[in-house]
Order: sequence, then structure tokens, then C-alpha cells
Amino acid sequence: MLVVLPDGKPLELPPHATGADVARAIGPGLAKAALGIQVDGRLSDLLSELPDGAHISVLTRKDPAVVDLMRHTLAHVMAQAVTEYFVQQGYEKSTVHMGIGPVIEDGFYYDFDLPRTLTPDDLEAIEQIMHRIVRDDLPLRKYALPREEALERFRKRGDPYKVELIEDLPKGEAITFYEQGGDEGFTDLCRGPHVPRTGTIPQHFKLMSVAGAYWRGDERRPMLQRIYGVAFQTKEELEHHLWLLEEARKRDHRKLGRELGLFTFSEDIGAGLPVFFPRGEIVRFEMERYVRDLQTRYGYQHVWTGHMVRESLYARSGHLENYADVMYPAMEDEEVRMRLKPMNCPSHMTLFNAGHHSYRELPLRYAEFATLYRYEKSGQLSGLTRVRSLTQDDCHIFCTEEQVQAEFALALRLIQEVLATYQMTDYRVQLSLRGEEGKYVDDDEKWVKATEALRRALDIERVPYDEAYGEAAFYGPKADFMAKDALGREWQLSTIQVDFIQPARLGCSYIGEDGDKHTPVVLHRAVTGSTERFMGVMLEHFAGDLPLWLAPEHVRLVPIADRHLDYAAKLRQALLDAGLRAEIDDRSERMNAKVRDAELLKVPYIAILGDQEVETGSVSYRSRKEDNRNGVQLDAFVAHLVEAVRSRRAEIAPLAATTA
Amino acid sequence: MLVVLPDGKPLELPPHATGADVARAIGPGLAKAALGIQVDGRLSDLLSELPDGAHISVLTRKDPAVVDLMRHTLAHVMAQAVTEYFVQQGYEKSTVHMGIGPVIEDGFYYDFDLPRTLTPDDLEAIEQIMHRIVRDDLPLRKYALPREEALERFRKRGDPYKVELIEDLPKGEAITFYEQGGDEGFTDLCRGPHVPRTGTIPQHFKLMSVAGAYWRGDERRPMLQRIYGVAFQTKEELEHHLWLLEEARKRDHRKLGRELGLFTFSEDIGAGLPVFFPRGEIVRFEMERYVRDLQTRYGYQHVWTGHMVRESLYARSGHLENYADVMYPAMEDEEVRMRLKPMNCPSHMTLFNAGHHSYRELPLRYAEFATLYRYEKSGQLSGLTRVRSLTQDDCHIFCTEEQVQAEFALALRLIQEVLATYQMTDYRVQLSLRGEEGKYVDDDEKWVKATEALRRALDIERVPYDEAYGEAAFYGPKADFMAKDALGREWQLSTIQVDFIQPARLGCSYIGEDGDKHTPVVLHRAVTGSTERFMGVMLEHFAGDLPLWLAPEHVRLVPIADRHLDYAAKLRQALLDAGLRAEIDDRSERMNAKVRDAELLKVPYIAILGDQEVETGSVSYRSRKEDNRNGVQLDAFVAHLVEAVRSRRAEIAPLAATTA
Repeated sequence: MLVVLPDGKPLELPPHATGADVARAIGPGLAKAALGIQVDGRLSDLLSELPDGAHISVLTRKDPAVVDLMRHTLAHVMAQAVTEYFVQQGYEKSTVHMGIGPVIEDGFYYDFDLPRTLTPDDLEAIEQIMHRIVRDDLPLRKYALPREEALERFRKRGDPYKVELIEDLPKGEAITFYEQGGDEGFTDLCRGPHVPRTGTIPQHFKLMSVAGAYWRGDERRPMLQRIYGVAFQTKEELEHHLWLLEEARKRDHRKLGRELGLFTFSEDIGAGLPVFFPRGEIVRFEMERYVRDLQTRYGYQHVWTGHMVRESLYARSGHLENYADVMYPAMEDEEVRMRLKPMNCPSHMTLFNAGHHSYRELPLRYAEFATLYRYEKSGQLSGLTRVRSLTQDDCHIFCTEEQVQAEFALALRLIQEVLATYQMTDYRVQLSLRGEEGKYVDDDEKWVKATEALRRALDIERVPYDEAYGEAAFYGPKADFMAKDALGREWQLSTIQVDFIQPARLGCSYIGEDGDKHTPVVLHRAVTGSTERFMGVMLEHFAGDLPLWLAPEHVRLVPIADRHLDYAAKLRQALLDAGLRAEIDDRSERMNAKVRDAELLKVPYIAILGDQEVETGSVSYRSRKEDNRNGVQLDAFVAHLVEAVRSRRAEIAPLAATTA
Repeated sequence: MLVVLPDGKPLELPPHATGADVARAIGPGLAKAALGIQVDGRLSDLLSELPDGAHISVLTRKDPAVVDLMRHTLAHVMAQAVTEYFVQQGYEKSTVHMGIGPVIEDGFYYDFDLPRTLTPDDLEAIEQIMHRIVRDDLPLRKYALPREEALERFRKRGDPYKVELIEDLPKGEAITFYEQGGDEGFTDLCRGPHVPRTGTIPQHFKLMSVAGAYWRGDERRPMLQRIYGVAFQTKEELEHHLWLLEEARKRDHRKLGRELGLFTFSEDIGAGLPVFFPRGEIVRFEMERYVRDLQTRYGYQHVWTGHMVRESLYARSGHLENYADVMYPAMEDEEVRMRLKPMNCPSHMTLFNAGHHSYRELPLRYAEFATLYRYEKSGQLSGLTRVRSLTQDDCHIFCTEEQVQAEFALALRLIQEVLATYQMTDYRVQLSLRGEEGKYVDDDEKWVKATEALRRALDIERVPYDEAYGEAAFYGPKADFMAKDALGREWQLSTIQVDFIQPARLGCSYIGEDGDKHTPVVLHRAVTGSTERFMGVMLEHFAGDLPLWLAPEHVRLVPIADRHLDYAAKLRQALLDAGLRAEIDDRSERMNAKVRDAELLKVPYIAILGDQEVETGSVSYRSRKEDNRNGVQLDAFVAHLVEAVRSRRAEIAPLAATTA
């Protein structure tokens, strides 16, 4: 047989040759360094037979892809370690059953059916055994068995899950096994790929947690114990990953929401329905006011359409058919059935239809901060990032086909400005286009025109983008902004979608320059997505240390003694009059305790007021946003903050020196 | 027998004497001028027998109360005229049947069962006959019949409604009739009272409309035709009333809402659920922003609690029991029953309960602009003033008993400031107190303390008030603001209510200075009531000519020719940058047409831009708010408007002269 090397040269090999044979044929150095192989672009291992004529490339530690081989083998190593551990504990080997153990992002897991529930101490002990198995450098071997023989083996061992897996394999497919450490070691039904020896796995792995998981995700099947592990090629990567997790835990917006007094959930109100304390309401309000002001500046108009409509509107728009499972149940009386709004589009189109429109009025841009209600499954709810009440910064732009490009460009600019303000500058745009399948509206000309308009606008605005075929909505192409937060996690935020369908369904029309009736195109557009979700993302992005303009309290005033209270009140009034938010800590605590409490609330400016400040009419402050300063004149301090809030900039220019 | 005159003197009269006998006994002048009589403080007529020993006072035209006698007799005159009219038209007299015909505010009505539907022309003709009957000066006579004889009379005439009325009268009650003009005239089953002769009725009446009305208001009974009429003692009063009606029609906020492009209703969205166009949304937003800013200044905090809760919360709060008929039906799934919020209190108390509170934190003032949903009967819906979606400017103040007076006073001041801004300065306050009945919470000490606190606060704030016993809510005393609009119509707007009950029911508590747990008192407070209703009231109060700060568009820019467009764009940008709202009318219409269109939209400033303005960088404006001006420098114009909007004052100080 014959394979083709990366440089295009053929390599002659004996029949049934494996990747290991290739490496050996190339040279002893590579034979030693080889960890896996790429066969026709897919990851494979050194233990598997190569197909004749394949383009291959031998992989070593330098190739990032090999980490998945290590992770996969680690799942087997963990299964071996769990078995060994339970036997050590006095259980029969036959009491340990296994489900599946795949590679996942950053690591692997394995599902076990065990005689008892695992504790964190167990994980620690299992991890120690795994380290030993890696040190033992057990060789791996791959072999196939006839179906009946394979079934027989697991039936005899009493392994119901493996029997089921084999039974579900298509007839005629090879049933392969990976064995490590011979009969003493561990053998698993597995398609691979794996590293050739356990000793090639770096010791940079860690078992993270154990969680319940239904066999095959079916809640009517047995609950197994799933152990999660992470693994990396280098110590630095593992440490970075663990740091990210710890950082994400610290930044968890649900935790920050409690600590900063922003929002809460209540059994009395309902799952997935956050309620906001005064400090959280300020953040909501400022977020919405910012987008509102910007939208006004960009020529958008705001409308108000409430929170429910007659169900019959959603029957006409098509939402009842396609979207009913995320709608709240109907409110039904003798007259009509009402539905909470899960989206605004039919309402905005109804508003559009309330008047007659000429092409001269287009584009008409209806924006609304309406709270929508979607009945997400309770298991999927998560803090603010997955809620049932979501306040979208939603807009529907009614325009002619010719205006699509310019309106799309305008929306792009607005979104870019907002993301920059929120310091979310690391994003990519995915342009989702029509695929081959039949779900798309059948109007070639419209698709081609709209797609071209979107591409041109992206090019002109110099926004880099990827194209994803088959990812468009059925009603038209769309662009989604995927932005990375401070921890590098990607969030889908803004979206702009072209809609050829709904406007016609709901009978929207305008009189064109030709005097005829036309159906407008509608662009659906959201900037931050929803206030709730975006607040959750921002809390994690900024670790709760929100930009000054968003801070629920701009300044905490800390009078050192009671004799400084009058001056504090004067300063507070000056700050309030300037539209700033300031509170006085007038408790009879020590100054340091007051400062610490303000820091826990991440108040951006703490003004400490003592004899010196009262005498000179000045302010000494500590700030999270700029260098600390003493002896700043009161008026200068207020003006400085007003400008810093107004500009919404991340960097606050330091105050020029003043004499106190 | 004997009656007592107003001066306290007794007057001896023959048995069965009537008011007419009294008037004659006093003198021929009074006998001629007398129209009715007051018997023991109740209005009666000259035709009825007086009870022995009654305190009486003879009424003449000078007494306003006699207008109700006239109106009542006019209902009979109308019935006579309708009968005559239908006979003239060739119908049998027996085809005209009557229901009831009472006095109402400003006039009267009568319900008829007629062989055909009435038209406006019929009303005109009937009114003419009425004028003639009045001129004929028919004398009225009152008499009684035995029950069976009375029933027999109407059965014979085939008058089912009158038969039913008599049958429903308690046995033993006198069955009285009023006859006018003898057998040729008209006789009606009636308790009175009436004027003695039709000729005493001034000719200042008018038939207004005809409408369907179910017999006895029961939709399963026949639909009758109800003719409404108005009547006054003087021509001036009638004319003023008709002017008021016409003015109210012109100011009808539903009409203005259409003309000014503010809001609409849609079958697709649902009855009682207004939706707002961009111009209307601006008014909503500015109204709410104003109260929000003011509340912030007064130390209120804003919260956000969404639009629905679990039904079980309303079971605990007691609303499900007492309030279910105005709630929307539940949304029910396998897990829970959810309800749209008809009020915020249980939600705000839930938010309060999410933390532990010390007396040091009180008062805590939670305000929210939440849209509430109340299932008002469809027949009661009316434009914005009676809706199913209402956005309350709601606040719940958690305080100690000792703080009630100060918090009440603070709320009073805030409400007075708001009403002054809206130029609703003609209002009265009703202090609703506990009555004798048992519905009130049984805690004497709390009632007495709270009532005293409210009275003291009103006195200190120098707010005049009336006390209404038995009008309090079951949970505590309250103060309501009843404000008169420009047409003198009274609207109940602001309210402050003390609540001793709900906080305990929902388990609200704080730790007092004594270290023990206490239940806070809660003050419920609304300033404008609801955004929707208040907008409706304001539109009628200002006849659509809203105060400058509320105007959807502050300035309409009218370039005289295309060569002035650039300058218009520059001015518009300067206005927008200053936070003002301005549009350019760039149509190729004549200037006068543009000005007229802006006037129809009641745009407060129209800036006309021609060669002169472009050359000198100035503005010439026409204004609904101040004198027109020419040649005002652009910057001065912008600054002038900014200040006028910011101040929210009704009177806009004219600009100092500037040189253009």
C-alpha cells in the first residue's frame, strides 16, 4: 500500500500499516516523538490501520491537535483508576459499570455506575492513581472483535451500558477496543483515537467535579456519576485554565448581583424572573438611557406597544406555529385569547399598519425597550444570562430594498459605537447566509440582492466577518456580533436580520415613487440583546467594577468625624445637583471600616472628608478609575466627575493640579 | 294641620294641604312665583300633600334646586311629544311604549319602545313639539290609584314596562300619577316631583342624542331607545353647557391622539391596550422622566419588578380573594399559575423581604413605573382614561409609625410640585377616614395615630382638605387629590394611602432600635396615577397644546426655499445637540402650507428660515408659547429653548432683544 506525505511524496508501506509504521519508516526520531497522525485532514492515532492512498501527516507534541488524543486516553486512564480505586476499597470489580467517556472542550469526562456516590476526597485519590498510571507508561493496543464475541464479553461481565452501545452500532461496522497495560490494565469499547502509551500524556490534568447525568440524557434511564477532568499540554495552560475558572467564579454575575445589591430572584415571583433593587435598577436604567440617546442621535424613533397582544396576531405572523413552545400559555376569557409578547415585530408592524405610508417616510425605524416573556425551560435558566423576562433593545427598520445597505451600515455603526463604549472591542461578525436546504424563502433575487448589500456594507464599514452558509433565518440573511469578554469567553450580543417575509404576512405596505403599493423590507436589530443578559455579561466582563457612568453610586462620602457631616452634606448636594449619585456614610464606624465597605460595593470614588478638606473647601479621594488625589477643590471635583460620566470613556483623564 | 316656615313660624293649613296651598296662604305674589317646595330639606312639588309638622320652604326660580323639577317635567313633556309625533306619522298611539324617564346631571332622559328607530331629524321635530307643549302652559295634576286599577290601566293599554314597574312596587305604597293637559295631554306613572305648569319651564333645553339602552340595564331584556336632553334655567347656562360639550369634543383626547399622531388602538392587539407612535412615546417618556427625576431629588429609589408573579403571592396578600375580577386570567402550565400584575405592592414587599432591615434604613421608598394590567369590562373602556394597561408612577414607602407624618408630608409636597408643573392648581384633597361600619381593621390606636399624623401634615403643609368618614380603604386612611381641568371637570389623580395590613400579611419586618422585630407601615403613593390616563387628562386639559417640555417636537424648521436647507440642517443639529427635538419640513410645499401643517400638529415653535436668516445667522419664529420674533441669533434661540424646556414653566420669559 501507499500513503502520501505532507511534501507530496508517496511512501510505500506493507499491507495493514498503521501510523506507527509510517513514523518508523520516516526515521527513529519521529518514531519516538510521534503521538498521532492526521489522515486526510482528520485526527487519528498511530494504532489504527491507514487507508490506501491517504494523505497523512505525523503529529508530535508540537501539534495542538494531539491534546485531544491525550484527553481521550485520560478518560480511559480515569476509568482504569476508578476501577482500581473501588477494588482497593473492597468492592467487586464487577460492581463498577461504565457508560461513555468522550473528549470535551478543555478536557474529558466519563460516566460511571458505581456502588456508592463519589466525594471530592475520592476524586483526589482517583487523580493520584491516574498520575501513577501515566508514570507506568502503559502501551495502548487496538483490536477488533466480531459483534457476537464483543457482546458476549460485556454480557458476561454484566455491563448493560456497553451491551446497549454495541447493539446500537450499525451491522457490519467494526467493533474495536483499546487496551492499555494488557490484561492487568484496562480495556474499553472505543473507536479512538488515542496516544500510543500513557506515558506520553503530560501530567497537567485535574479532576474537577462529579455530577449526575442520565444515561443517554434520558431522564427515565438510570442516573450515572459523571466525573469531569481538564487536561493541557503545559503546566502554564492548566494553571491559566484554573485561574480563569476561579476568576469566572469570582466574577459570577449571580454572586456579584447579591454582593453589590443589584438584583435577586424570588420563589414568590417565579423562576427566571429577576427583580432589581435600587442599585440594579440604576444600572438597567443607565444602560437603556444610553442606547436610547444614541438611537435618537442615529435617527431612530421610539415607540411603546405594551406587553401582550391577541393570540390571533401571532397566528397571522406565523409565530404561533413556529414559536409556541417558548411562549407563555394563553390568558383565556370568554372573548379572546391573549398572549404575552415573546417578540415585538408583530406589534411594530401593527403600529406601522395603523397609518398610510409613502416612500418619502422610509426608512422608518421603530425602537422599543419592551420586556418580552419567553418560557425557557426551568433547567436552562441561569442568573441574568438566561431568563424568562428579557428587555430587548429592539428595533424594526421599515425600508425599501434599495435602503437595506445604508440601513444595515447605520446599524453596524451604532452597534460598534455601543460595543466600544462597553469596552467589548474584541468581536467577530458572522454573516449568516442561505444554505442549500429548502427551509429558505424561495426568492433568489431578493437573497442575492440582500446578501450583496450586507457584504458591501460590511466592506465599506471595514468590519471583518466570516460567512456561514445555511445559518440564515428562513426569512433572510443576518449578521451576528460575537464579542469576547475580559476572560476571552464569547457572547452572542448584537444582531441585524433582514426579513422578506413577515412584512408581507402582516400586510405592511407603502406607496412607492411609482404610485404603486409595495411591501417594505424589515430589518430586525438588537444592540445589546437584552438589558438583563447584557447586564449579566457586563458584570462578569468588568468583574462588577462597572464603568463610572454605569455605577449605581458614583461617590461615597466618608466624613472622618461628626463635625465633618455638614461639609459632607454640602458636597453631596453639589454632586446631586450636577446629576451625580452620591451617598454619605454617616455611621459611627471608623474611617477604615467605611472605606472598606465602599470598596466592597465597588463605589468608584471614595471622598474622605476631614478637617483639612473642610477648612480648604476641598476633597481628597480614592478612586478605582484613576490615581488617588488630595486637596482637589470641590467645584473642580464635581466638574471632573460630570465630564467623566458624560464622556462614558473607560480612561478618565487625571485632573489638572489645583491648589487647595 | 300645621307646617313650619323658614323663619320658624308655624302656619295653620286645612287637611291634605299641598305646597300650592302654602304659597297661596303666604300671598298672591308667592302663589304666582312658586315652582316647588322643600319639605324637611328634601325637594318636593306644589302638587303633593304635605306631612303634618313639616319644615317647609317655598321655592321660586331663584332657587337652583327647581331646575330638577323642570328637568323632570321635561321628561314627561318629551314623552308626550314623542307620542304625538308618532301619531302624526300615522302610527297607532298604542305602538309607543315607555320605560322610565329620570332627571340626570344637566338634564333628563326617557327610554322608549318605538315602532322604528329615531334619527337626528326626529329629535329636531320632537324638540319643536316640546317647545309648543311648554308654550301651551299645560297644568300638572297629581293623583293616586289603587294598585289593581293602575295595573289594569296599563294592561289595557298594553304597556308591559309600566306593568312591571308597578308589580315591583312594595305592596301598600301609593301608586301616583302625574297628568299634564288633561285627557288630551299625557299621564305617567310617577312619584314626582314636578313643576305646576309646563309654562313655567324655560325654553332653554335641547335634545342631544339617542342611544340604545337595555330595559333595566339587563342585556337579556329588550333594547329601548333612550333620548337624552339637557335643560337649564337660563340661555347663558345652556349655551355655556353646549360650548363645554363642543370644547370637550374638540379636546377629546382620542381625537387629539389621532390628529397629533400620538397613539392608537388596534383590534390585533386588544381592547383597552393603547399603543404609542413615536410622538406619543416621547410624551410618555418625558412624563415619566419628570416624575423619576423629581422622585430621585426627593430621596425616592427606583426598583424594577417586571410584569407578572406567581398567583400564590396574591393568595397570600389577599388580592386573589378581593381583586380577582379585575385580574387577567392566569397563565397555567404544569408547574405554576402566573398572573399579570394588577398592582405593585406585593412585588415591592417581596423585594423588601429579600433583605434584612434595620430601623436605620427606614424610610425606604421603592418607586417603579411598571405597566399593570387590569381586566376592565369592555363596556367601561374609554380612550386612555380607562384602559387595561396602565403604567402607574407607583411608590411604596416602608417606614415606622413615627415616620408616617413626615413621609406623608414629603409625598404631599412632591404631588403639589407635580400638579403645579402640569398647571392643575385647582384641586381639593379628600382625607378619607374610617367610618362606623365593621370593614375597617380593628386597631383603634393605629387609626387614631395615623389619622392625626395625616391631619397634622396637611395642616403644616397648608393643604386645605375635606374629611370623608367611611371612605377609607379597609387597611388605613388615605388622601386623594381631586383636580379640576381647564373645563372645570374633576379628575381623581394623586393618592397617598396608609396601610397597616399588607406588610404584616406578607411578613415584612425590620429590627427596631429596641432590637426587636417590628412590622413597618407602608404608604402607597401615586403622583399622576397612571401615565396613560394622565396623558389623556393632560391632552384635554391643554387641548393638545402641551407644555413645551412635553411637546413631541419642540421646533419645526421651515426653510422657505431649497437654498435654505443647509442652514436648516445646521440649526437642527444645534438643537439636537442641545437635547431639543426638531424636524425640518423639506417638502416642496409653499411656506404657508408648511406652517399650517406644523400648527395642526401644535408644534410650539415654527422657525422660518429665508435669505435674511441665512445671511445673519438668525432665526425668525412663530410660537404658541410667547410672542413671535424675528432675527434672533441662532445661539440665543437654542439657549432660550433649552432654558424654557429645562424650567418646565408655563410662562416663557421673552428673549431679551438681540441684534441680528
